[in-house]
Amino acid sequence: MVRIALAQVDPCVGDVTGNAALVLEWAARAAEAGAGLVVFPEMVLTGYPIEDLALRDSFARAADAALAEVTSGLVARGLGDLTVVLGTLGRSALPGREGRPTNRAVVVRGGAVVATYDKHHLPNYGVFDEYRIFAPGDAGCVVEVPRAGGGTARAGIVVCEDIWRDGGPLPAMGDADLLLVLNGSPYEEGKVGVRAELAARRAAEAGAPVVYVNLVGGQDDLVFDGGSFVVGVDGTVLARAPQFAPHLLVWDLPDDGATPGRLAPPMDPDAEVYAAVVTGLAGYVRKNGFRSVVLGLSGGIDSALVAAMAADAVGGENVVGVSMPSRHSSQHSKDDAEDLARRIGADYRVQPIEPLAAAFHGEMDLPGIAGENLQARIRGVILMGLSNVEGHLVLATGNKSELAVGYSTIYGDAVGGFAPLKDVDKSRVWALARWRNQAALDAGEIPPIPESSITKPPSAELAPGQMDTDSLPPYHLLDEVLDAYVEHAEGRDELLARGFDAAVVDRVLALVDRAEWKRRQYPPGPKVTALAFGRDRRLPVTNRWREPKGDPR
Amino acid sequence: MVRIALAQVDPCVGDVTGNAALVLEWAARAAEAGAGLVVFPEMVLTGYPIEDLALRDSFARAADAALAEVTSGLVARGLGDLTVVLGTLGRSALPGREGRPTNRAVVVRGGAVVATYDKHHLPNYGVFDEYRIFAPGDAGCVVEVPRAGGGTARAGIVVCEDIWRDGGPLPAMGDADLLLVLNGSPYEEGKVGVRAELAARRAAEAGAPVVYVNLVGGQDDLVFDGGSFVVGVDGTVLARAPQFAPHLLVWDLPDDGATPGRLAPPMDPDAEVYAAVVTGLAGYVRKNGFRSVVLGLSGGIDSALVAAMAADAVGGENVVGVSMPSRHSSQHSKDDAEDLARRIGADYRVQPIEPLAAAFHGEMDLPGIAGENLQARIRGVILMGLSNVEGHLVLATGNKSELAVGYSTIYGDAVGGFAPLKDVDKSRVWALARWRNQAALDAGEIPPIPESSITKPPSAELAPGQMDTDSLPPYHLLDEVLDAYVEHAEGRDELLARGFDAAVVDRVLALVDRAEWKRRQYPPGPKVTALAFGRDRRLPVTNRWREPKGDPR
Repeated sequence: MVRIALAQVDPCVGDVTGNAALVLEWAARAAEAGAGLVVFPEMVLTGYPIEDLALRDSFARAADAALAEVTSGLVARGLGDLTVVLGTLGRSALPGREGRPTNRAVVVRGGAVVATYDKHHLPNYGVFDEYRIFAPGDAGCVVEVPRAGGGTARAGIVVCEDIWRDGGPLPAMGDADLLLVLNGSPYEEGKVGVRAELAARRAAEAGAPVVYVNLVGGQDDLVFDGGSFVVGVDGTVLARAPQFAPHLLVWDLPDDGATPGRLAPPMDPDAEVYAAVVTGLAGYVRKNGFRSVVLGLSGGIDSALVAAMAADAVGGENVVGVSMPSRHSSQHSKDDAEDLARRIGADYRVQPIEPLAAAFHGEMDLPGIAGENLQARIRGVILMGLSNVEGHLVLATGNKSELAVGYSTIYGDAVGGFAPLKDVDKSRVWALARWRNQAALDAGEIPPIPESSITKPPSAELAPGQMDTDSLPPYHLLDEVLDAYVEHAEGRDELLARGFDAAVVDRVLALVDRAEWKRRQYPPGPKVTALAFGRDRRLPVTNRWREPKGDPR
Repeated sequence: MVRIALAQVDPCVGDVTGNAALVLEWAARAAEAGAGLVVFPEMVLTGYPIEDLALRDSFARAADAALAEVTSGLVARGLGDLTVVLGTLGRSALPGREGRPTNRAVVVRGGAVVATYDKHHLPNYGVFDEYRIFAPGDAGCVVEVPRAGGGTARAGIVVCEDIWRDGGPLPAMGDADLLLVLNGSPYEEGKVGVRAELAARRAAEAGAPVVYVNLVGGQDDLVFDGGSFVVGVDGTVLARAPQFAPHLLVWDLPDDGATPGRLAPPMDPDAEVYAAVVTGLAGYVRKNGFRSVVLGLSGGIDSALVAAMAADAVGGENVVGVSMPSRHSSQHSKDDAEDLARRIGADYRVQPIEPLAAAFHGEMDLPGIAGENLQARIRGVILMGLSNVEGHLVLATGNKSELAVGYSTIYGDAVGGFAPLKDVDKSRVWALARWRNQAALDAGEIPPIPESSITKPPSAELAPGQMDTDSLPPYHLLDEVLDAYVEHAEGRDELLARGFDAAVVDRVLALVDRAEWKRRQYPPGPKVTALAFGRDRRLPVTNRWREPKGDPR
């Protein structure tokens, strides 16, 4: 038998010293639980993804020093017999690639690195850019791990993408008794099931259980959901850690057969998405050294949901909610904002913008939409002023639907260091708000979000009597078209073929194209970069492409 | 003999119809010049780089339609005998990659596509991301081109990166009479010489002259400098087009030997950088459909240089300069701003910010740096208001040095859709200003930039008596350290080994790290993207890595 601990931890990119301490702490916990083998996620020692930090020699030296700290620290703590598998930054020794960074797994035992493995398949799609940074490895890795009753088990080691592609360096049938997979697999809806199916396939191919260890926690614009698991040769999930929380999952590899371990229950889809957003927000605040957040509370559903999420992420006492009413703000909006703040225990402030708007209008002529934008920009200046003086991180409250169609003011409500709903469409905003309130009721707590914020018709309240539906199609329809056009890159022809009304399609496409154009007045964020003129977008900015109205010819 | 025309043109990404018209127009010009073969740059029909547009089926269909327009349009114009080589979006037919986008060169003659070539080497370093988007080709391409005196010449065809890497699909010695290279090669300082040396090497290897055709013009955050050329087997540059302007370069391939053509003179380094920035700015304004720009004029060197560049890019009459004095603005600053506007013929406005700052201070307590930021943000709101009402693109005037060390206000002076000096350090700002004024004197014109803007000590004028040197090391020293630390990824150890003073190094590194931290309050720009949570940076945001103060241990 080999007792295996899956260390589902939350490192911080760049904090090599803190990450080394984290590894030592969890290795000790694994040993206390009787484990002979502990497996950490991909690049746990450097954090993941490290992007161009990999290209900095001084960073590579520090990562090497952190690994030395782990190897000697294990011995110093009396854990020299423990086999520790972890991910870090390596350097290639392959001809023509000498010294180039690699995404490496190392096996530590007895105060030394006893084996290394460099990731073969370097993903460069979606959020991944590894092929750009790392050199691939070209060799498999199988190490012997002592069995509790004597003898050894053969553990094959690969990293994340290596199991997602065929033709990888996986051990062949009969070459390994178990397969360890170190992962930095970001959350996506539905991915839990996909991972399990994939791992089951690899387990069957290798004739060995697969031990899948994932990162957890928010890191920049990614969220790692954990959910580490063990799957047997017959495809049965034998053990599973919870999602969105650090966890030490212990599972025993028997000398023959397969033993089931603990199974965390699966999550409801809305619960999962809500937890993903809260995890991402909490990680961004904490890893960037903030302790509190500030946001504008309009009384509407978006800011109410963000405030509730922020209270769940950093505690209601660390949330500053600012009501910034204008002459167009209704009494129910002000009441709902205050009610929300009270429910979540936020620090509530009121800062009317009327005197400030009046000062600008006294100096400049800003009619129509320019005047609407002015209101939003004054609110942005107020929030940034509070941030500068008191140190809070500003949260932007815009949702994915309104950002896609440009129903937002650049340098106005778009101000903020983190935008929790940026990838959550309006239909989902309502669903998450309802889910969160119900979860509170189920737990015997006060629902955080005032019911009227959920039920009232959405309005930006930037002009008299303004309603979102004055400018936009109904959100349930808008979100369907956006999903097809933006997320699935479908064209007008495909949308019409799926039965959408041509007038609605043309209206939404025109709004999205106009929003893209507006963003050309929005700079790429200033940054320190070695790239001439930098680049910040996946879609070219000065893109004159518009969906053809009929046949492309 | 084959008369070859190198069509150095400026297409627009996404504008497939306009680009097809451009190709037809320049093909006609080539035929008028007696050419039998005209070569266009890489992906001229789609524009370059097209990023994720390549993944949109409706875009691929439109690119196919544009190619059909070119093939039939040539015949309709009586140019059926002309051999036209151009770049566009292709689709792979290779097993396992069927239908995936390719970066394709096509050869058109007699109303049909007579040959195609898919780029082999897909760069994914620096500004390039092609490996992510395109599938590579696996076959070389040599086509027969009629000689004027009868018989044919064999022309090998490759695309850009294919000549930058060894082991490419280049014709072997004796297999081709000339080598056509279609390029989208962005400008970098010193690249003109590098390209010529590389092409000379490939010409020698293939035993054939190399015809190197490059894009020209600003496209998003890239600048293509043109500079198309022909290099002979012995390494002699036989013909060269000017940089930074569309140009039809004609060169005759003799039936034996090599004939020299026209040689544009090389550019002075400051002239080249100045032209690169102006070209980038002009392209951004025009391709995004703007006709005018607005910027704040402080009387300082940065805004003066940007204004002069803007006048060169879009005409002084399309530049709106706004002086926005505060109580801290000196009289010479206001005078210099007005003087500059007069020199370049800009629309000059004055909008004092004191009443607006007073309104905010009456409502909120914003002491110290928060009050300095407030001034910058009020100016940002004013410029965006003018942009909203009058339609100008806002230019940000910050330079690379101050952005790197955070000597800038988020949502304040960083407001703007384009930042011409973002990649120009302060030392270079002064050099470019002096160069521009001297160029005016040499041409018998009034120098655009007031001498006092160049010679006075730099100040942000956000507090009484404030000087940049109160907060920053002298710029000549700062720029040297930034270049090593940021551009060349050198660490503290390397900087000290090069002889920099430890106190200066530690001060600059702390400033850069602090600036990076400040940027965490700056959101990734809202965008339409199919990627969960998007991603905007090459350096991870929540990066806790700091250069170690001594030995990394």
